[in-house]
Amino acid sequence: MSEVHPIRLLAADGIEVLDQTALPGAERRVVIRDLPALCEAIRSLRIRGAPLLGIAGAAGIAIACETRGTDDVSLALAAAEIASVRPTAVELGSLARAALAAVIAEPPEASVRRERAWRFAAELVARRQREDRALADHGARYLADVASVLTHCNTGALATGGIGTALGVVRVAFERGTLRRCYATETRPLLQGARLTMWELQRLGVPATLLPDTAAASLIAAGRVEAVITGADRIAANGDTANKIGTYQLALAARAHGIPFIIAAPTSTFDPRCADGGAIPIEFRPPQEVGGFGEQRWAPAAIDVYNPAFDVTPGALISAFVTERGVVEPPFADAIATLLSADEHGNR
Amino acid sequence: MSEVHPIRLLAADGIEVLDQTALPGAERRVVIRDLPALCEAIRSLRIRGAPLLGIAGAAGIAIACETRGTDDVSLALAAAEIASVRPTAVELGSLARAALAAVIAEPPEASVRRERAWRFAAELVARRQREDRALADHGARYLADVASVLTHCNTGALATGGIGTALGVVRVAFERGTLRRCYATETRPLLQGARLTMWELQRLGVPATLLPDTAAASLIAAGRVEAVITGADRIAANGDTANKIGTYQLALAARAHGIPFIIAAPTSTFDPRCADGGAIPIEFRPPQEVGGFGEQRWAPAAIDVYNPAFDVTPGALISAFVTERGVVEPPFADAIATLLSADEHGNR
Repeated sequence: MSEVHPIRLLAADGIEVLDQTALPGAERRVVIRDLPALCEAIRSLRIRGAPLLGIAGAAGIAIACETRGTDDVSLALAAAEIASVRPTAVELGSLARAALAAVIAEPPEASVRRERAWRFAAELVARRQREDRALADHGARYLADVASVLTHCNTGALATGGIGTALGVVRVAFERGTLRRCYATETRPLLQGARLTMWELQRLGVPATLLPDTAAASLIAAGRVEAVITGADRIAANGDTANKIGTYQLALAARAHGIPFIIAAPTSTFDPRCADGGAIPIEFRPPQEVGGFGEQRWAPAAIDVYNPAFDVTPGALISAFVTERGVVEPPFADAIATLLSADEHGNR
Repeated sequence: MSEVHPIRLLAADGIEVLDQTALPGAERRVVIRDLPALCEAIRSLRIRGAPLLGIAGAAGIAIACETRGTDDVSLALAAAEIASVRPTAVELGSLARAALAAVIAEPPEASVRRERAWRFAAELVARRQREDRALADHGARYLADVASVLTHCNTGALATGGIGTALGVVRVAFERGTLRRCYATETRPLLQGARLTMWELQRLGVPATLLPDTAAASLIAAGRVEAVITGADRIAANGDTANKIGTYQLALAARAHGIPFIIAAPTSTFDPRCADGGAIPIEFRPPQEVGGFGEQRWAPAAIDVYNPAFDVTPGALISAFVTERGVVEPPFADAIATLLSADEHGNR
């Protein structure tokens, strides 16, 4: 089985992305050469997944170096433009800004800055792959007694460029023989669970079962899963976590039935500037995503819609955060502060 | 606005039903003349909604009188055949059996039994309309302080042949000016909320908002609804309630945020033979309903699926049952026994 590569860096030619809106029907690769095309691809979820959006944000600075100029102002404007496309996923903006800072710290020669921008993006890809492995290792060890999990949305290779966060844990735990089945929600409205997670699990050979989002509490009540594990788009200082819409009700059901609810995310997903979930900006998506899918409509025309892309799960419902630096358990405020003060290898 | 008629009784010609699988795209009426066609229409949800299934069950005995013979054995076999099509909704079987009992109590002349069978079905339609009105009146009074509710699946005229149960309450509360908005979940996998409830609310002129099933806890957490109200398919003696898959997680979210979770159902939905939810048979539906809709597929081929049609909400999460005889509040076991021992007018 070949690995999935959701983004390839092509330097002067831009980036090549696997169009995630076309999966699983078609594996269509698209080359993106300028910032409007990148922003469109992010907005329409051709590129998605919080950690992968971080790579896209950094790559966007490199693309801006190629197409907008390498001066500080052009690049700062590009970073702001990229960050504004999807406000909830912290890595999109934070890693675009980190790339900006790295690039403008270099001498102003265009070739030097361009080279630095692509190198930053490439280092981020390598770091993502390394950190995903470390995260999955911690997670698989933490879940060594768990034979079946439920996950939501997509957190696999498609979402990170590595082996994934929650789905990376699933993959490694399955390879070690401890995990035997992964249940996946469809994840309305954009169906990332049905389209992407089931596709990845099938490629990995992990026994997988798909359920409508409505059936999650029933599944948990029936004792069919021993833990729920998802990714995250932004984690506040107190542990409140924004993730794909629908995560919060999974956490409520897990709590009601006494099974662990676990968030798997790299430390770059933590945002200590948000004191709690109330400070996390929530993106609302276009109404046409609800009441239909793609070209197909099933609701009447001209209706009002409520369509937030994310919800916030209170830290009090979360059993643990699995990160590349280890597992964090409650009480979260101090544990998260300690986690973030360490370096990549856990040294302080 | 004309009323919706999901079933019309045509006596010797059978019944005419509004094909609910075609809504809201097309208002297609289908004539059903024999038992196989009736069972297919019930299995495929052309006819659906627990109270309407009760009418379909009774009409099925009349259709059997026309097509299978009017002897006791033929009719008893017909009742068993009808009841087996969808096991969770209590009214399908219980009202087919009630129709059977009424018919075989008549003299064995075929014309007498046929006439009695159609009369029983017609009386049931009239009773449903009368009871829905009474239920909605009790419910609207109970929710007089509530300006916005969330509902699930479809519980309107399409589901009962009257004005509906939960959606009947919504209708009357809106007409009285107390309720101002109804939120409706899409209700995967068969999307009765998006297709049917939104269509009914639009016809009624009730301001309505559609949401993905994943967004319900977010909506409740945001304080956008003051109560959740749904129908039921079978209510056990202790108040545990089987209803459309997804109901249970709405009840968990309502409890987490301290808003009432209300079941609106006629007393015929209570099944005192089920001591608790564990005794309610749960129907599992075909896998192809998940990972796609209609002809459209979005999940990979050849996948495993978890697709129960119903879940069970523990009575402990239910704030009240609204029935045609009044409102029942906890503790439920005694209150339900008292409710069921009264006659239609609340007299004991």
